[in-house]
Amino acid sequence: MREVAIVGIGLSRWGEVWDASLRSLWTEAALAALADAGVDTVDSITVGCMSPGLFVGQEHLGALLADELGMPGVPATRVESACASGGVALKAAFAEVASGMADIVLASGVEKMTDVSGDECTAALATAADAELEVFHGASFPGLYAMMARAHMERYGTTREQLAMVAVKNHKHGSMNPRAQYRQEITIKDVLRSAKVADPLNVLDCSPITDGAAAVILAELSVARKLAKGRPVVKITGIGHATDAIALHSRPDMTSIPATTKAAQRAFAMAGKGPQDVHFVELHDCFTIAEIVVLESLGLCAPGEGGKQAESGRTALGGALPVNVSGGLKSKGHPVGATGIAQMVELATQLRGQAEKRQVAKARVGLAQNMGGTGASTVVTVVEVAS
Amino acid sequence: MREVAIVGIGLSRWGEVWDASLRSLWTEAALAALADAGVDTVDSITVGCMSPGLFVGQEHLGALLADELGMPGVPATRVESACASGGVALKAAFAEVASGMADIVLASGVEKMTDVSGDECTAALATAADAELEVFHGASFPGLYAMMARAHMERYGTTREQLAMVAVKNHKHGSMNPRAQYRQEITIKDVLRSAKVADPLNVLDCSPITDGAAAVILAELSVARKLAKGRPVVKITGIGHATDAIALHSRPDMTSIPATTKAAQRAFAMAGKGPQDVHFVELHDCFTIAEIVVLESLGLCAPGEGGKQAESGRTALGGALPVNVSGGLKSKGHPVGATGIAQMVELATQLRGQAEKRQVAKARVGLAQNMGGTGASTVVTVVEVAS
Repeated sequence: MREVAIVGIGLSRWGEVWDASLRSLWTEAALAALADAGVDTVDSITVGCMSPGLFVGQEHLGALLADELGMPGVPATRVESACASGGVALKAAFAEVASGMADIVLASGVEKMTDVSGDECTAALATAADAELEVFHGASFPGLYAMMARAHMERYGTTREQLAMVAVKNHKHGSMNPRAQYRQEITIKDVLRSAKVADPLNVLDCSPITDGAAAVILAELSVARKLAKGRPVVKITGIGHATDAIALHSRPDMTSIPATTKAAQRAFAMAGKGPQDVHFVELHDCFTIAEIVVLESLGLCAPGEGGKQAESGRTALGGALPVNVSGGLKSKGHPVGATGIAQMVELATQLRGQAEKRQVAKARVGLAQNMGGTGASTVVTVVEVAS
Repeated sequence: MREVAIVGIGLSRWGEVWDASLRSLWTEAALAALADAGVDTVDSITVGCMSPGLFVGQEHLGALLADELGMPGVPATRVESACASGGVALKAAFAEVASGMADIVLASGVEKMTDVSGDECTAALATAADAELEVFHGASFPGLYAMMARAHMERYGTTREQLAMVAVKNHKHGSMNPRAQYRQEITIKDVLRSAKVADPLNVLDCSPITDGAAAVILAELSVARKLAKGRPVVKITGIGHATDAIALHSRPDMTSIPATTKAAQRAFAMAGKGPQDVHFVELHDCFTIAEIVVLESLGLCAPGEGGKQAESGRTALGGALPVNVSGGLKSKGHPVGATGIAQMVELATQLRGQAEKRQVAKARVGLAQNMGGTGASTVVTVVEVAS
């Protein structure tokens, strides 16, 4: 298998971007990544997007966006695994480079979520859950994650305040990220006093609705070395993907995410690394409870210890294992199809030493975890500075 | 790059299948393919599906279907390029096997189209066109293909009867396919007298709305040889993918499909073959005019000669280059996400010599062409009996 590196990174504006369409946001990110890589064409394009059909009435994004970018003819494919769409778009691009089918691939993600009403948005997002077994019965994601939170609190004594501390930490990180959607710091009291969404989760436990796009350029390693121009070469050394029962009630346990554990095992095995080798993490904190459960499921702390990670300071910038220094989904924003690619943008930014105020010291190995639904799909990626 | 073969094939029931859901149809096809291959698990799953969000209110098919199949944990991803979703799902699976990321992959496609009204179905299909530049202005696919037909008639003298002859031929082929949605033969007069849809196309120039799924199992060649059990080993020797401007009016010419030409060039170059080496073809006859234009764009006849191919008998079973002996989209049916995979099922069936009444004599090299929209995405595949 050929080795694969990240040679270019780009983000569009993130937030409620009412003056841009899906295609223009995506093109912003793609052009930024191409400029960063110093290339003006690619062999192939993958686009992670969860539901352009429901959000903007447009499928067939591959051809649409290749054309919008001025690259008609280039093979371009949309890939979808709900909120892990970015992760699977990365994996699909990785496979093309690793196989030799392509030398340089643009892996991207996008979601335009604010062109519909809040109710329509919730309904579109709910299509990531099981329509027949969950959605028809009234379940949507805040409620499903609330059940996971309640189960975790019951089993392990995780506290309401510990949930809030995840949001407080990630907003503090986001305050140092000029690209974050919400850059204000918040307090535990702010979280506890914010509007109830689904007990025990309040609105400040939830990631926001976001318009945005992200792009990375992947290249075969020898090509990447030529394009590096003195910058560190950032290699993808492990990529693991796993699924699980999509309906939360079909799983034996609500306090862990087995697909995340399996995906991590696959990624670590491929990279020849383990949890102890990771210097920093970007993970899928769609709700505060998610960060807690995912840390445990990745093997980065023991089961039941997730709630103590933000409380102890371990996962803050400057701690032993900084988590979501970008601000995470909570503060940076969560345009669902773009999130998995944006995590790669942050990992490469950190490994290049370009993260300015939020730079993790001595960052040489980073891990990203991107998931769909209540964790029925997970992609875990290990990224390292090439020696 | 590792070599890749098709070791298992399966189809669900096709037609208006009101007693089955998307998930059960897909599982029918997947189980048939697994049984045919003689394997009970796979390393990875790809699912081509155009718009489950709009058709059945369900995204996140990868995890959903892996679970439904009794394989939770297995990496599973949905891939979409409108009506070429099956083709890109095949390509994504091919890349995983070719790279060494997986040894055995289930590549599949599905669409459940009859759970919505006819108008909702037309609207869902129209999301394969450019929402801002075509759909907002009233264009849908019958109208767009009708413009291509009219342009072809004006430029080359293609006749209304020649269009009809494509449908007549493909229904005759379909009458020999027990899996086809419409198995009755039709006459030129039937086509000409059928209801007008968009001048010059009548309803019998159009492929139907279909529920259905298709699956193939891909394996690395040495694995495939072990699984062959005396059957011919069917290799994928070339796979090419290309895009174009999604909006028909953005292209310099409406009488050819450049993405098909580019994809064919890529597939032929990879296979070390040319148009003259192909023994039979499954192509994307979503409308009768499509078969005519695609034959020209693939280089299987000269520009302007497409109309004469069915008329002369060249493309009929028994002719020099049988086209759509399965019945094609016109008679076999067109569950849009499944079509590209169903073409692989037919190619493998023919190359194994299992096509019974519709068997192409001495078939050793087959070609499939699967496209999305008015040809803005095309995947071309060359499949051969391994020596």
